[in-house]
Amino acid sequence: MLKLPLESVESCHLDSALLNMGDFLGHGLAGSFYVILGLWWYIKIIFMYVCKKQAQTCYHRSEAFFQRAEILEGTICLVMVLTGGTGLLTYSGSTEMTLRKEGQWIQLKRFQHLTIYLFFGLWAVTNILCFTIKSIPISLTKLMLTNAFSAGAFILYTHPHSPQVVDILLHELLCLAIFLAGLVSFIEVLIKENIMLALLRSSFTILHGSWFCQLAFVLYPPTGVLAWDLNDHINSVFFTICFCWHYAFIYVIMGVVYVAVTWFVKWRIRKPYPSEVVLLKNAEREEESEEEM
Amino acid sequence: MLKLPLESVESCHLDSALLNMGDFLGHGLAGSFYVILGLWWYIKIIFMYVCKKQAQTCYHRSEAFFQRAEILEGTICLVMVLTGGTGLLTYSGSTEMTLRKEGQWIQLKRFQHLTIYLFFGLWAVTNILCFTIKSIPISLTKLMLTNAFSAGAFILYTHPHSPQVVDILLHELLCLAIFLAGLVSFIEVLIKENIMLALLRSSFTILHGSWFCQLAFVLYPPTGVLAWDLNDHINSVFFTICFCWHYAFIYVIMGVVYVAVTWFVKWRIRKPYPSEVVLLKNAEREEESEEEM
Amino acid sequence: MLKLPLESVESCHLDSALLNMGDFLGHGLAGSFYVILGLWWYIKIIFMYVCKKQAQTCYHRSEAFFQRAEILEGTICLVMVLTGGTGLLTYSGSTEMTLRKEGQWIQLKRFQHLTIYLFFGLWAVTNILCFTIKSIPISLTKLMLTNAFSAGAFILYTHPHSPQVVDILLHELLCLAIFLAGLVSFIEVLIKENIMLALLRSSFTILHGSWFCQLAFVLYPPTGVLAWDLNDHINSVFFTICFCWHYAFIYVIMGVVYVAVTWFVKWRIRKPYPSEVVLLKNAEREEESEEEM
Amino acid sequence: MLKLPLESVESCHLDSALLNMGDFLGHGLAGSFYVILGLWWYIKIIFMYVCKKQAQTCYHRSEAFFQRAEILEGTICLVMVLTGGTGLLTYSGSTEMTLRKEGQWIQLKRFQHLTIYLFFGLWAVTNILCFTIKSIPISLTKLMLTNAFSAGAFILYTHPHSPQVVDILLHELLCLAIFLAGLVSFIEVLIKENIMLALLRSSFTILHGSWFCQLAFVLYPPTGVLAWDLNDHINSVFFTICFCWHYAFIYVIMGVVYVAVTWFVKWRIRKPYPSEVVLLKNAEREEESEEEM
Repeated sequence: MLKLPLESVESCHLDSALLNMGDFLGHGLAGSFYVILGLWWYIKIIFMYVCKKQAQTCYHRSEAFFQRAEILEGTICLVMVLTGGTGLLTYSGSTEMTLRKEGQWIQLKRFQHLTIYLFFGLWAVTNILCFTIKSIPISLTKLMLTNAFSAGAFILYTHPHSPQVVDILLHELLCLAIFLAGLVSFIEVLIKENIMLALLRSSFTILHGSWFCQLAFVLYPPTGVLAWDLNDHINSVFFTICFCWHYAFIYVIMGVVYVAVTWFVKWRIRKPYPSEVVLLKNAEREEESEEEM
Repeated sequence: MLKLPLESVESCHLDSALLNMGDFLGHGLAGSFYVILGLWWYIKIIFMYVCKKQAQTCYHRSEAFFQRAEILEGTICLVMVLTGGTGLLTYSGSTEMTLRKEGQWIQLKRFQHLTIYLFFGLWAVTNILCFTIKSIPISLTKLMLTNAFSAGAFILYTHPHSPQVVDILLHELLCLAIFLAGLVSFIEVLIKENIMLALLRSSFTILHGSWFCQLAFVLYPPTGVLAWDLNDHINSVFFTICFCWHYAFIYVIMGVVYVAVTWFVKWRIRKPYPSEVVLLKNAEREEESEEEM
Repeated sequence: MLKLPLESVESCHLDSALLNMGDFLGHGLAGSFYVILGLWWYIKIIFMYVCKKQAQTCYHRSEAFFQRAEILEGTICLVMVLTGGTGLLTYSGSTEMTLRKEGQWIQLKRFQHLTIYLFFGLWAVTNILCFTIKSIPISLTKLMLTNAFSAGAFILYTHPHSPQVVDILLHELLCLAIFLAGLVSFIEVLIKENIMLALLRSSFTILHGSWFCQLAFVLYPPTGVLAWDLNDHINSVFFTICFCWHYAFIYVIMGVVYVAVTWFVKWRIRKPYPSEVVLLKNAEREEESEEEM
Repeated sequence: MLKLPLESVESCHLDSALLNMGDFLGHGLAGSFYVILGLWWYIKIIFMYVCKKQAQTCYHRSEAFFQRAEILEGTICLVMVLTGGTGLLTYSGSTEMTLRKEGQWIQLKRFQHLTIYLFFGLWAVTNILCFTIKSIPISLTKLMLTNAFSAGAFILYTHPHSPQVVDILLHELLCLAIFLAGLVSFIEVLIKENIMLALLRSSFTILHGSWFCQLAFVLYPPTGVLAWDLNDHINSVFFTICFCWHYAFIYVIMGVVYVAVTWFVKWRIRKPYPSEVVLLKNAEREEESEEEM
C-alpha cells in the first residue's frame, strides 16, 4: 500500500567485521526470541487442549497454573525487552539517547529496533495487568499483540535496506511472516478460544524467528565473508523455496511436540485417576468440546 | 488498487506565508477535531464498560444518559461540520460556490475538503435520527461512519500533492490511519458491541488526528519557514518511527484515562450503595459480561 | 494483484460518430439496469424491514408475495440479459458469432460484455431455481451474485482501454464500485439476513450504475464532441470528487425512499388493524427484531 | 505485496521438443489432479447435503461411510503425491537429489514443484490422522489445506518465468485461482460446515486444474509448435475472457452433477422407505437444516 523509496539509504551500512558480528548476534538473538515465544505458545495451547480432552478435573486444577504461566510469560518478556533495549542503546559504545547530531540523523536503525521493543514491552505490561486485574478483558492482550506484530511489520517494511535483490527479498519474507502473525492475532481478537488460530499464530511467530536466524546467517555471516551473491536473481528463487521449507519443517516439529505433550499428559493423569473413569468422561464430552481450548 | 498520477499537479501550491498560516490552522483544527472525537468515544466506551462492571443498576440508570450523549454528539458534530464548511467556503475571501472559472478548475482542494465535511455531516444527521427515531437500526450510524472514514481515505489518496518524498509519506500515513479507522468501523457493522473494536476505532481516530497536527507542523509550520528538507529520504525514515511513537503514546494515554474513569466511577458509586453489595454483584456477573459494552 | 499491460490496445477504438452514439446507448442502458436493480433491491429490503417492524401478521401474509417477487426479479433479469446479449451480438450489423477472422481478433470487447451478461444470466437462473425448488439453499443466489459482480470487476479490470488519464480513472472507479458490491455479496453469503449488508450492496450497485451513466456522458457524449480534455490530470481530480458526490447523493435518495416506504406501509396497515394493537405489538417486539430483515 | 524481479531468469527455459512434451504431460497431469480433486470434493459435499435433506436415517447410516471416504481420499492423495514426487525427481534422467553443481543452481524449478508436493503430502497425512485419531480436531485438515494452497500460490507467484506477456498472464491467473482456493479454505477454518464455502472451494480447485490444462496446451503444446504469439497483448485479453468462461462452465457442470446426485439418492432411498414418510420428515426438517452439510 505504501512504498518508501529508500533504495538510496546505504550510508547506514558499515561493512566492518566487528559490526557484522554484532549484527549477526542481534538478528540471531531476535530470531531465537521469536522461535522460543512461538514454541512456548504452541506448547501452552497443546497442553490446555490435551488437558481439557483428557479430564475436566485436571483442567480445572490447572487453570490457576495457566494464569500464573501467563503472568510469568509477561514478566519474562518485559525483562527480555528491557534487557534488549538497554543492550541496544549501550551497544557499540554510544550511550547517548540522541537521534540527531550536527544536523545529521544517527542511529535511525537502532531507534527503529527500539520502537519494536517498545510495542512488545507494551504487550508484556498488558499481559501482566490483564491476568492480575480481573476487570480488564483478556482479549486486550491479543489486541496489543496485534499492535506489536503490526508495528514490527510496518518497521520492517520501511526499513532502509541495501538495493541488493536477495537482501530485499529476505526482508520482504520476514515482513510477510510477521504481518501474517499480526493478521491472525487480529482475527483472534474477534474469534476467541479458537485453537486453529492460536496454532497458526504460533507457527507464523516461529517462522518469523527462524527466518530471522536464516537472514542473520546469509546477510551477516559470523565468518565475516558473504557466501552468497546478493545480486543474483537465481539465489532469490532458492530462498523462496527455502522459506516454504522452513514453514513445512515447523509443522513437522509441531506434530512431534503434539505427540510428546499428549504422551506426557496421559502419563501424568494415569496416576491419580483410574483410566476407566477418564475414558468414560472423554466419551461423553468429545463432541461438544472439540474445537475449544 | 487505484493510483492517480497526480505528481504534476503542483500549481495548486502557493507558498505565500499568509496561505501557509491558513493551511496550518486548517490542518491543525481538523486534527484537533479527530483527536477530541476519538478521545470522547474512548471515554464513552470506558464509562459504559466500567459502569456495567461496577453495578447493573448504575448502568440502567445511565442508559438514558448515554442515549442523550449520543444525540448531543451528533448535534455538536453537525454544528462543527456546518461551521467548518462555511468557514472553508468563505475563507481566503472567495465566497463564490464555483468550481470552474474561465475554463480552469479553481478551489478543487477546497471542494475535496468540503466532500469530507459532507460525509461527516451525513453521519452526524444519521446519529441524531438513529437515537431519536426507534425504528432505525443503530448500526446504521456505524455504516455511515464507515462511509465517512472511507470517503476521507479516498479523498486523501487522490489528493493532489507535491512530489516531495516526505510530503507524500506524511499523507500516505494519514491515509493509512483513516483507512484503518474505516475498516474497523465496517467490522463493527458486522460484529456489534465488541469493546476491542470500539477501542481500536477510537485509537485510529486519535492517531489520524494527532498525525494531522504533526503534518501541519512539518509541512505548514506557523513560523513560515520549513524546518525539514522534504526531499531527503532519511527524514522519511524518521517519520515512520515517529508515526509508531504517536500510536504507542496514544495507548499510554488511553491506559491513564482508563485508570481515571475507573477511579471516578468507583468514587461516585461508593456513595449510594454499600460496597459489599456491589462486590457481591460483581462476583456473580464477572464471567458472562466480560467482553460486552 | 494482476496488472495487464494493455496500454497499446488502442486499435479497438473507432471514433466515428455512429459508434459513439452506440457506445453511449450501450453504457447508458447498462448503467440504468444497475441503478434500477439496486433501487429495486433497496425498496424490497426496506419493505420487508418495515413490514416486520409494523406487524408480524402483515409480514407473514406478505412472505409468499416476497417469494413471488424474487422469482419475478430473476425472470425479468433473465429476459433483460437475453435481450441485451442478442442486441449486443446483432448490433452494428455483424451477426457472426466469431472471435477470429483472417488471423486477427475481432469483437473482443463485445465478447467481454457478453461474458458479464453470461454471469448475470447464471445468477438470474439460480434466483428462479432457488425460489421454486425448496431443496436448494437460498444463499446460493448470493454466491452467484458474488460471481457475477466479481466477473464484472475482473472484466473491467482487464478491459483494453485508451491510455488517456481520465478514461483510465473513470474505468478504475467503475471497477472499484462493482468490486465492492461483489465483496459485500460475498460477506452476505457468510452473514445472512443482515440489513446493513443488503443496504450496502444496493448502494454500491446503484453507484456502479450511476457511474456507468456518468462515464457514458463523459467518454461517449451523445453530441459526439468530447467536452473534457481526457489527458488533463486536474480533470481526474474533479472526477474523484464527483464519485464521492454520487455516493453521498445515493444515500440522500435512500433516506427519502425509506421515509416514503414507511409512510406507505403505515397507511396500508392502519386500515385492517386498530392502531393501538399495532403499537402494542411493536413495543413488545422492538428489541429482538432490530437488525434482521 | 511482494514482487520478485525474476524477468532475467530465462536460462531455465530449454526449448527442445522432448522437454516440451515432458512439460505438457507434467502440467496436464497436475491440472487433471486438481480437476479430479475438486470434482470429488463437490460430489462428496452434494452427496452429504442431499442425504441429509432426504432422510436423517440415511445420513446417520452413511456417516461411517463418509469417514472412510475421507481416509481413502487422504491415502490416494498421499500415494499420488509420492508417485508424482518420485516421478519428478527421476524424470529427464537426473536422479541426483542436489540443488547446486559446480557453483550453479540446477533443477530449481523442479524443487519448487517438489515443495508444492511436500505441502499436499502434509495435508494428506493430516487428513488420514484426523479421521483415524479422534482427539485431533477435524478443522486441522482445512488449515493444512490452506497451507498447501497458499504455498502453491506463493511458489507460482515467485516462479521464474519468461518475460512474454501471455506467459506471465496465464501464470498470474493460475496463481489467482489457487490463492482464492486457499483464502476460502482459511475462511472454512473459521466458519465450519458451510456448504457455500465448500462449494466455492471446489469450484476454485477445479478452475485451478482446468486452467493448468489450458496453460499446458498454450505454452507447451504437444505438437511442439506454439499456436499463439506470446508477446501479443491482444491475445492476453482473449485469455482473460477464456478464464471467465472456464469458471462459468464449471458452474454449469456443477449444476448438472447436482441434478444427477439428487436423482441418484432419491432412487436409492425410495426402495427401503415408503416415500410418504420421507416427505413427511422433510416437511418437518426443511427449515432448520437448510444451510448445513
